[in-house]
Amino acid sequence: MPLLGLLPRRAWAALLSRLLRPPCASCTGAVRCQSQGTRDLSPQHMVVREKILDLVISCFKRHGAKGMDTPAFELKETLTEKYGEDSGLMYDLKDQGGELLSLRYDLTVPFARYLAMNKVKKMKRYHVGKVWRRESPSIVQGRYREFCQCDFDIAGQFDPMIPDAECLKIMCEILSGLQLGDFLIKVNDRRIVDGMFAACGVPESKFRAICSSIDKLDKMAWKDVRHEMVAKKGLAPEVADRIGDYVQCHGGVSLVEQMFQDPRLSQNKQALEGLEDLKLLFEYLNLFGIAEKISFDLSLARGLDYYTGVIYEAVLLQTPTQAGEEPLNVGSVAAGGRYDGLVGMFDPKGHKVPCVGLSIGVERIFYIVEQRMKTKGEKVRTTETQVFVATPQKNFLQERLKLITELWDAGIKAEMLYKNNPKLLTQLHYCESTGIPLVVIIGEQELKEGIIKIRSVASREEVAIKRENLVAEIQKRLFES
Amino acid sequence: MPLLGLLPRRAWAALLSRLLRPPCASCTGAVRCQSQGTRDLSPQHMVVREKILDLVISCFKRHGAKGMDTPAFELKETLTEKYGEDSGLMYDLKDQGGELLSLRYDLTVPFARYLAMNKVKKMKRYHVGKVWRRESPSIVQGRYREFCQCDFDIAGQFDPMIPDAECLKIMCEILSGLQLGDFLIKVNDRRIVDGMFAACGVPESKFRAICSSIDKLDKMAWKDVRHEMVAKKGLAPEVADRIGDYVQCHGGVSLVEQMFQDPRLSQNKQALEGLEDLKLLFEYLNLFGIAEKISFDLSLARGLDYYTGVIYEAVLLQTPTQAGEEPLNVGSVAAGGRYDGLVGMFDPKGHKVPCVGLSIGVERIFYIVEQRMKTKGEKVRTTETQVFVATPQKNFLQERLKLITELWDAGIKAEMLYKNNPKLLTQLHYCESTGIPLVVIIGEQELKEGIIKIRSVASREEVAIKRENLVAEIQKRLFES
Repeated sequence: MPLLGLLPRRAWAALLSRLLRPPCASCTGAVRCQSQGTRDLSPQHMVVREKILDLVISCFKRHGAKGMDTPAFELKETLTEKYGEDSGLMYDLKDQGGELLSLRYDLTVPFARYLAMNKVKKMKRYHVGKVWRRESPSIVQGRYREFCQCDFDIAGQFDPMIPDAECLKIMCEILSGLQLGDFLIKVNDRRIVDGMFAACGVPESKFRAICSSIDKLDKMAWKDVRHEMVAKKGLAPEVADRIGDYVQCHGGVSLVEQMFQDPRLSQNKQALEGLEDLKLLFEYLNLFGIAEKISFDLSLARGLDYYTGVIYEAVLLQTPTQAGEEPLNVGSVAAGGRYDGLVGMFDPKGHKVPCVGLSIGVERIFYIVEQRMKTKGEKVRTTETQVFVATPQKNFLQERLKLITELWDAGIKAEMLYKNNPKLLTQLHYCESTGIPLVVIIGEQELKEGIIKIRSVASREEVAIKRENLVAEIQKRLFES
Repeated sequence: MPLLGLLPRRAWAALLSRLLRPPCASCTGAVRCQSQGTRDLSPQHMVVREKILDLVISCFKRHGAKGMDTPAFELKETLTEKYGEDSGLMYDLKDQGGELLSLRYDLTVPFARYLAMNKVKKMKRYHVGKVWRRESPSIVQGRYREFCQCDFDIAGQFDPMIPDAECLKIMCEILSGLQLGDFLIKVNDRRIVDGMFAACGVPESKFRAICSSIDKLDKMAWKDVRHEMVAKKGLAPEVADRIGDYVQCHGGVSLVEQMFQDPRLSQNKQALEGLEDLKLLFEYLNLFGIAEKISFDLSLARGLDYYTGVIYEAVLLQTPTQAGEEPLNVGSVAAGGRYDGLVGMFDPKGHKVPCVGLSIGVERIFYIVEQRMKTKGEKVRTTETQVFVATPQKNFLQERLKLITELWDAGIKAEMLYKNNPKLLTQLHYCESTGIPLVVIIGEQELKEGIIKIRSVASREEVAIKRENLVAEIQKRLFES
């Protein structure tokens, strides 16, 4: 990977570790946490996850993305040259002979490796999978060492800002679809950040350090960030104040226009390029009908060394606080940007494939949705069973087995108790506690008359129907409900 | 885990390693294999997988199973005490401080650990996930070190053979549903195998060795297996011949009846218990309408030490060989059995939770389906895009963006080219090559008249409709097709 030599290793380390780090899960301990910093996902969790992932994936598919998967581990060298300083957070496999391997740390580097390895020049793909990071096992804070990422990326050389705008559209569709409450997507451009630093007089050697101070603006007040920059990082106070003027700016396309007139920024070629692109981006966002969700925010500094163009991060403006609900502090729930240099790092000849993408912080979203359901006291069904086969009589196992076979073979989701002679009350109670809506009941009388009783668990109403109409009748009821 | 001491470690090792080993993938090299013995899954693979997994999971749900997930790695001690001799195939994580961890080797041991840890006494769950084994990286033979398992298990104390029969029913539903051709499920019972060995006069110390010879009967002729038992494993020839009489027996419930009359087996209490259960099992299989798919096969010997009751293994009888298709030798595609002792090994007090389950060898099934599609020259669409937004005119990007937004917001899967001024031919060609069925075309004329053209890619027919009817018209067409 000769190209890496062109960039200071530490810069890469810092940049990549920050920009590739996805939002992490929060957890209240509702989950059984294992000592190694991971957790089992119970059926209750799985149901919530499945619904959320279905929505996310169907949005990715709506935008024409193909699915893909890569192995859980990569050659260590594929990853270590990427995350630099943070490589201590990578899980290495034990050397048991053969290549040295590490668990994947994100889905972006494997995607770039895949593109370069297969010489793919153009691809719109999504990838949902687990990644692993050896974060301090502070489970009370809800950081798990295994978590799920949902990535969507567009690789290829295209006309400017069309794929970038689509990524923002996708983030909006997903966050709206999940009904997480109001949200905002902060947008900036790496070239504007760099240009701003240069224009303010930050020495190039301090770009990274100052950038990481700026990155704290969502958690710290400006005066504290300024203090850090001046007292700890040795920035001249007047330079800090110039930066301060910028990073407190946020707004819509009018702010972009305003920055074009800015006496300092307008002198910087890079910044101008970034502004031109943002202007075009806002035009497209307007056509997509999402411009009011997007804020040009000069304090957004994520992933400076990794991203090469537009960068963005979605935050929830207010969590849907119900009476009695704890306020949720979840921070960023989705993020991404343009990275035009990563694929080239894996290509022997350094051929570049420009990419832009996004990552949905599903662990945080799982947590928010679970908390909301808990507050509302919503019960989650962990099975999808539609019909329960019951009998009030002894020695009716055979008839129950025949009946349930008919249902299964017709594609109906059905259960019965694994007992020879269960009590009717036990059977009905099972339906109530597990949320099964329909019961079919067979007994001596029904068998003689060639009928079956169908009982609605909710209304407790029972109707008798001809045995031969059973499947059709159930399908009708399930369709109607 | 004090209970483990009750069993010879080596016996556990051998038993668990065999019984927990799932069918492995076969591969022809169509896939880009990485040197570390794993592979990327391309969009083509993902489409086939998604279809197969959907079918498998919907069957599991039809039978009332809940979803569950466990972490990719477990404490090493959780696993090492289970796979014994084969623990060399386990991937250990590097000791980076903290607990020693290993990648999961199957989904059964984590399930048993979960049940014991959460004191769950009853659960019907499915689990689809990756497992990892350091098999020799013989990629030409198609063994990958990362592969997918689909497990369904019923834990709990129930009346005999009802859950066991349902597991076989599920295997039949899945194998029929996948249309892999004719199949057969071999059934036996661990107690019958043990009883048969005892009745034939195998010394108890040789049970395991003889069992592993028997296990080769699907690949070797009886005379070779007999030779191995006598010459290599020191079995008396007359004992081998007695076993030979049994292991060549296979048939339906009538063979069960016959074995009840067998002078030797009928003297063995364990074997009789097994036969009683099989008799009951066949009664239920009959009611499920699948008895003809099941063969009582005395040569089935899988997992003797691990399973405690019924065991089964599904094999394809003939692969759907088309003209020009290579004959596929895929062996077992699903297997399972009853294991009543595993959960107790994780419980501090040794409380047992009886379990029965099955594992679908999806990697083999993926391979078969992919090969069949290749032979038939079937093209797989890797995206689900329904509508393409095109224009014959220059400077129409804005109109295309507005139009595609309408479609996306209506939930329609839509794409367009990321170019300012694409040629119409390029746009139509994109639809043909990616299988998009509909094109909506907007140009100067259409914009003026407030209409849109809808083009069917297959028939090349175009109709003009009012712009305001676009979404409804497309939904109608998609619904009809």
